[in-house]
Amino acid sequence: MDTQITIIHTRTKKQKPDPDSLGFGRIFTDHMFIMDYDEELGGWHDPRIIPYQPITLDPSCMTFHYGQTVFEGLKAYRTKEGRILLFRPEKNFERMNKSNDRLCIPSIDESFMLEALKTLVEVDRDWVPDAEGTSLYIRPFIISTETYLGVSPSKHYRFMIILSPVGAYYKDGINPVRIGVEKEFVRSVKGGTGMAKTGGNYSASLKAQEVAEALGCSQVLWLDGIEKKYIEEVGSMNVFFKINGEIVTPELNGSILDGVTRNSIIQLLKHWDIPVIERRVSMEELIQAHHDGKLEEAFGTGTAAVVSPVGELLWEDNVLEINGGQIGEISQKLYDTLTGIQTGKVEDPFNWVSEVGTSSSSKSHAI
Amino acid sequence: MDTQITIIHTRTKKQKPDPDSLGFGRIFTDHMFIMDYDEELGGWHDPRIIPYQPITLDPSCMTFHYGQTVFEGLKAYRTKEGRILLFRPEKNFERMNKSNDRLCIPSIDESFMLEALKTLVEVDRDWVPDAEGTSLYIRPFIISTETYLGVSPSKHYRFMIILSPVGAYYKDGINPVRIGVEKEFVRSVKGGTGMAKTGGNYSASLKAQEVAEALGCSQVLWLDGIEKKYIEEVGSMNVFFKINGEIVTPELNGSILDGVTRNSIIQLLKHWDIPVIERRVSMEELIQAHHDGKLEEAFGTGTAAVVSPVGELLWEDNVLEINGGQIGEISQKLYDTLTGIQTGKVEDPFNWVSEVGTSSSSKSHAI
Ligand SMILES: Cc1ncc(COP(=O)(O)O)c(C=O)c1O
Ligand SMILES: Cc1ncc(COP(=O)(O)O)c(C=O)c1O
Repeated sequence: MDTQITIIHTRTKKQKPDPDSLGFGRIFTDHMFIMDYDEELGGWHDPRIIPYQPITLDPSCMTFHYGQTVFEGLKAYRTKEGRILLFRPEKNFERMNKSNDRLCIPSIDESFMLEALKTLVEVDRDWVPDAEGTSLYIRPFIISTETYLGVSPSKHYRFMIILSPVGAYYKDGINPVRIGVEKEFVRSVKGGTGMAKTGGNYSASLKAQEVAEALGCSQVLWLDGIEKKYIEEVGSMNVFFKINGEIVTPELNGSILDGVTRNSIIQLLKHWDIPVIERRVSMEELIQAHHDGKLEEAFGTGTAAVVSPVGELLWEDNVLEINGGQIGEISQKLYDTLTGIQTGKVEDPFNWVSEVGTSSSSKSHAI
Repeated sequence: MDTQITIIHTRTKKQKPDPDSLGFGRIFTDHMFIMDYDEELGGWHDPRIIPYQPITLDPSCMTFHYGQTVFEGLKAYRTKEGRILLFRPEKNFERMNKSNDRLCIPSIDESFMLEALKTLVEVDRDWVPDAEGTSLYIRPFIISTETYLGVSPSKHYRFMIILSPVGAYYKDGINPVRIGVEKEFVRSVKGGTGMAKTGGNYSASLKAQEVAEALGCSQVLWLDGIEKKYIEEVGSMNVFFKINGEIVTPELNGSILDGVTRNSIIQLLKHWDIPVIERRVSMEELIQAHHDGKLEEAFGTGTAAVVSPVGELLWEDNVLEINGGQIGEISQKLYDTLTGIQTGKVEDPFNWVSEVGTSSSSKSHAI
């Protein structure tokens, strides 16, 4: 494919938002990356960075009808010295290709996408905020653009990357949350699309989230769709428990997303010689462990929060309090280490971060 | 809400396609219906019929990311005398509201939508083809348009109806098809979104369909996601079997779509005093019945094909031939009667059809 990225700079730079009032995902930067797919035009082609702007699509575009979409989410962080770091971005494009495979979307060239991403972030470098906890959220996504109402894989696609400066997830220190165990609705099931990052998994989750919020819960704890016994994920995060000194997390079984944060946490724990195991975890086991005073910590993990401690689990009419509703020692240590590595404050023994603006843009072609 | 429909007629009517080469879902008519949702603007508002044209959306629109969409599919038929008939259109808007509820999309006013649909079809009346088996396919759909990357129900939506003249499903007479029983992939599961007509169910189905086609099958027979034992649907159709003189179809269990054709067929069979029962049907039962020579007919049902006889079921390494690979007597009778009612050739004892161009457009406001 054509790997020369055309860059068209905006003539009217937007005003940067007030760094103290950054929320999540509502403000977008000056530029975006686009690339289109058409088999007859050689597959993915015409990679370009252009001013952020609306896109125009025919109402019969498949994406509006049959949900053939995938997306990713990662962040760029500004270090104290002003360097811009990405955290394991290659994992996101690797996962995107797994999602593509499940959704019958043609695969992308992972190393080229990484170059494109770095070039885009470099162009909008000034948009990476520097206040504690803030970052630039990066959203690569693919939509199906064939204008056809038949149910079949689209012949045309559009890949885009948009960027959004986001505020700190925790504004007043980390607050453990209350999570509701979901017994009626299912996010995904073996044989479904749970291991892919595709829209349908998220639209399926909205209803349960509404119910949980009405019960004062901030997220849903999903159980497996088959026996409604085994823990899957919490909201849009993977989940870990510390039970009797050992860290356990549900094994990747096809319906759980292979989180980059989850993977990093497992590596960190092993590096620290803290026992960690991936296996099935049943709700029954959690209840028993809680009863025996051995459910010591629980936390969700994901790009947005990094680590989100669970203070209470709502199960039927019972509330299981965990660690006195306080953040646990390991949760805190994982949070501090990961955010430290991401922002260049802590040594990076795994070579997880990669810097923007040091190698890329050589192959691109500015106009 | 504002129920006055603004109509802006096109100035440049497109050329109608050659009626002999109509396919499915690639050609669209001169006009489309649009209506937007914003709670602060009173909910659904600004219903309008305008020239068919592309729509412009921000790349951060939720619909591109989290699959919060629903759709419907129905047809308008031209009778010999030139009247335009719709088949049970109120059922589609009723079902759309069920889908809306599952997807956390605000409900629509079903009777107003029916008026709007009739007005649109009346405007594009000349596009309803008249050759045997042809029709005007109608696609109402809703997309989520809030420009926000948070995972939560959108605050803005767009409802649209587009129209596409389509050719005969069966060009050379009804041909029974080979169907592959799917053992790995799952379309939907109890607690999921299977009973809703939403994009994610269809994107989840693409992979299995690809595998089935490679095995010479035209569709997939879906089993339940929990035990992988019970029949759910076939491709994007409901499914019926005639076993030992009795017609059986999987009961509506939450993961199966409540098809309008399915519902009509059940009513017709009861009207004819042919025994019909909605219950769980296992693959094991089908194999046993086939072995005993009692699997007499099998057919899928849906708006596209009306009735699609199954000639062969591919199960592991076995091929179960049904009725010598020929269309069964009841399948044929159902097909003839339903298509007859739809096109005004056969008496309509249930008041299923409603005519376009007799009552509507009084409330609309042409420009
Ligand atoms: C369903 C789901 N699970 C888990 C995660 C965590 O993945 P990651 O750590 O890669 O952000 C995410 C996304 O962020 C998700 O959407
Ligand atoms: C999954 C699925 N099942 C069944 C059907 C049949 O429904 P109907 O008879 O209303 O067309 C459809 C749609 O046409 C469908 O998409």
